[in-house]
Amino acid sequence: MLEVDFFLDLAIILLSTKILGLLTKQIKIPQVVGALIAGLILGPAVLNIVHETDFIDKMAELGVIALMFTAGLETDIKEMKKCGKASLVIAIIGVALPLAGGFLVTSIFSGTALGEMTQQQILQNIFIGVVLTATSVSITVETLREMGKLKSPSGTAILGAAVIDDILGIIILTIISSFADPSVSVTSILIRIVLFFVFAGVCGITFYFVFSHLSNRHGKKRRIPVYGLAFCLILSFVAEKFFGIADITGAYLAGIIISSVTQSNYISEKFEVLSFMLLSPIFFASIGIKTHFSALTGPIILFTLALLIVSVVTKVVGCGLGARACGYTKKESLRIGIGMVSRGEVALIVADKGAAIGIMNGVLFGPLVIVVIITTLITPILLKISYKHKGDGDSDDQDYFEPESCLSEL
Amino acid sequence: MLEVDFFLDLAIILLSTKILGLLTKQIKIPQVVGALIAGLILGPAVLNIVHETDFIDKMAELGVIALMFTAGLETDIKEMKKCGKASLVIAIIGVALPLAGGFLVTSIFSGTALGEMTQQQILQNIFIGVVLTATSVSITVETLREMGKLKSPSGTAILGAAVIDDILGIIILTIISSFADPSVSVTSILIRIVLFFVFAGVCGITFYFVFSHLSNRHGKKRRIPVYGLAFCLILSFVAEKFFGIADITGAYLAGIIISSVTQSNYISEKFEVLSFMLLSPIFFASIGIKTHFSALTGPIILFTLALLIVSVVTKVVGCGLGARACGYTKKESLRIGIGMVSRGEVALIVADKGAAIGIMNGVLFGPLVIVVIITTLITPILLKISYKHKGDGDSDDQDYFEPESCLSEL
Repeated sequence: MLEVDFFLDLAIILLSTKILGLLTKQIKIPQVVGALIAGLILGPAVLNIVHETDFIDKMAELGVIALMFTAGLETDIKEMKKCGKASLVIAIIGVALPLAGGFLVTSIFSGTALGEMTQQQILQNIFIGVVLTATSVSITVETLREMGKLKSPSGTAILGAAVIDDILGIIILTIISSFADPSVSVTSILIRIVLFFVFAGVCGITFYFVFSHLSNRHGKKRRIPVYGLAFCLILSFVAEKFFGIADITGAYLAGIIISSVTQSNYISEKFEVLSFMLLSPIFFASIGIKTHFSALTGPIILFTLALLIVSVVTKVVGCGLGARACGYTKKESLRIGIGMVSRGEVALIVADKGAAIGIMNGVLFGPLVIVVIITTLITPILLKISYKHKGDGDSDDQDYFEPESCLSEL
Repeated sequence: MLEVDFFLDLAIILLSTKILGLLTKQIKIPQVVGALIAGLILGPAVLNIVHETDFIDKMAELGVIALMFTAGLETDIKEMKKCGKASLVIAIIGVALPLAGGFLVTSIFSGTALGEMTQQQILQNIFIGVVLTATSVSITVETLREMGKLKSPSGTAILGAAVIDDILGIIILTIISSFADPSVSVTSILIRIVLFFVFAGVCGITFYFVFSHLSNRHGKKRRIPVYGLAFCLILSFVAEKFFGIADITGAYLAGIIISSVTQSNYISEKFEVLSFMLLSPIFFASIGIKTHFSALTGPIILFTLALLIVSVVTKVVGCGLGARACGYTKKESLRIGIGMVSRGEVALIVADKGAAIGIMNGVLFGPLVIVVIITTLITPILLKISYKHKGDGDSDDQDYFEPESCLSEL
């Protein structure tokens, strides 16, 4: 008898993530939140009807790779260069504060003095900070578009900063995940990272020319996205296997390399179908399926609350300060800060990675999922409130005033 | 450390099936043959670098489901009704002779007298016949299109017959695979099959209305193909799990049910991306990866040759006789017979299924793969030769003469 139970698991995952995704979309919350909640319901937290299997894990991993590759594809390096100082400053402070905040709050709750922590503990606590750095700007973009504020100065700044934010997050993750094996020295890790980027660079330049040639010659042929997927898989494999660097770094780099090829839109289109038809629902559901709320004891609930507050406050303050330093008005700075609050796919991918390579205690996974869901839920609400009151020097009213060309994601 | 070796396996499969597929396409042989050869090279027959894993098996099974669902989607029931007697007669005789031929040749080579065979042996020998029934018309269509003969009387007859051929094959497979468990009585099997078709019918009518409503209301929304995939998975699961009927029957029926929905083209388009980007290459490669040529001893090679001759002769004679009986000229009948020779996806899917449910000895898998490859290679060559000589009453020269409206697949 053939094993066909996984057909039913997949069907349940596809239907529940889609239906809940559409429900959350109805109330102006991104489908990702619905898909996550679907996973939580299917998993041990509620119904316990779909279980983690090797197959689901591998499909989810493929889903992550595809998501990160698409993120890379959409990162427009040329546009980003034009973005200038403001977005860079906003992103850097907006990454630094949550990183520090996540580290501090986890350290405080661990109850161990900083001097007495093992390297493993320090790494884990930094890692929680890393998860908190990743902004997911999609919900903000949707909200701003709906309010007609997407091309306002604050909208432009948010978009630019979110792109840089992703890249900074990946760099920090790369460094941190390399430290997962405590037997390796810092020097060898740094050498490994440098070697990987050199390798990826050489590989990237070679592949860029091969790919440009192919995609110019063949146009919209099916082979182009297939080669793209193969390239993405190879770079992910090599990163993880030979350089001890997270596979998602490889996938993201592969996306960036291919992003400037003529047919990148065509490739991106095919990857999207692969994602929404099969891989993404499995990934988002798998996050929920892995989340045990039985671990939510009193101290963990308190920790979750603290983490939530820290993640919101550090983003608003960090990005707000950055914006203020670059000459935005108080009101604009607040809006920019709020727009950067929502976490999403990338935070989940990073948290998932941390659990998989054992850098993070599994008990911290639930709190992180909750933080991601809640920040995503409150961002559009806060954003709408922040745009309601108009004050002096509110250049955001001039809908199409663009201080810098930063609309890389549009 | 995360297990990422399957990334490399996938990348190798994607690249090799695509590159070999493109090479075979260059010499006017369908990409399927190239993909199969790629699998043979990767597997134990040659390099032995990619191995069968649970993950690859499951992905291949998903690939099969997607292929059969698409085949169902493309089966246009309304057009088929118009096709009339000729295609039906051609298909029936063209299925009966290979079925009998496959059974006989396997029985002869097994060396056991018919009266002494166990039920298991009889089933296996019939099963080989079932594999030989499935025509893959895609290569013939390509060849005819290239020669400008697609809309000729013989072209029209081939297309119509190939559609009916698929349906007959699925029905026989359904019956045969139900017998895989020898402890079950014939009556209970027949009841089970009837019950499944009743179930699929009720399910189909309900789902058809739900789906028509959804697809009329929402148009080209992503949810439509996602629901389609979920429906296909559920029907496949239910067929195999509760009715003991091949999952591919469920997938094919799901495709037929959805084929008359407004958005069926949109659904088919998304399924195609899923197939060519990921699932089909894995399926075709997995066939090669499973094929051990070490089993090719003297008797098996003789058997392979006999099977090949039988599979070619029975199709040409069977379909040719059918055509002749329906009033086609000798030349046209020969062309129709030759056009039906090539076997393809469906034959492989059926063979794979037989090996999986244990109805067929694994040693017979290699010969079947070889037969599929060779029939596919020779069909376009024979077809071109048969169209070269023009004789009396050769209405095929009238390119756009259509005796019946049978162009269901165009």
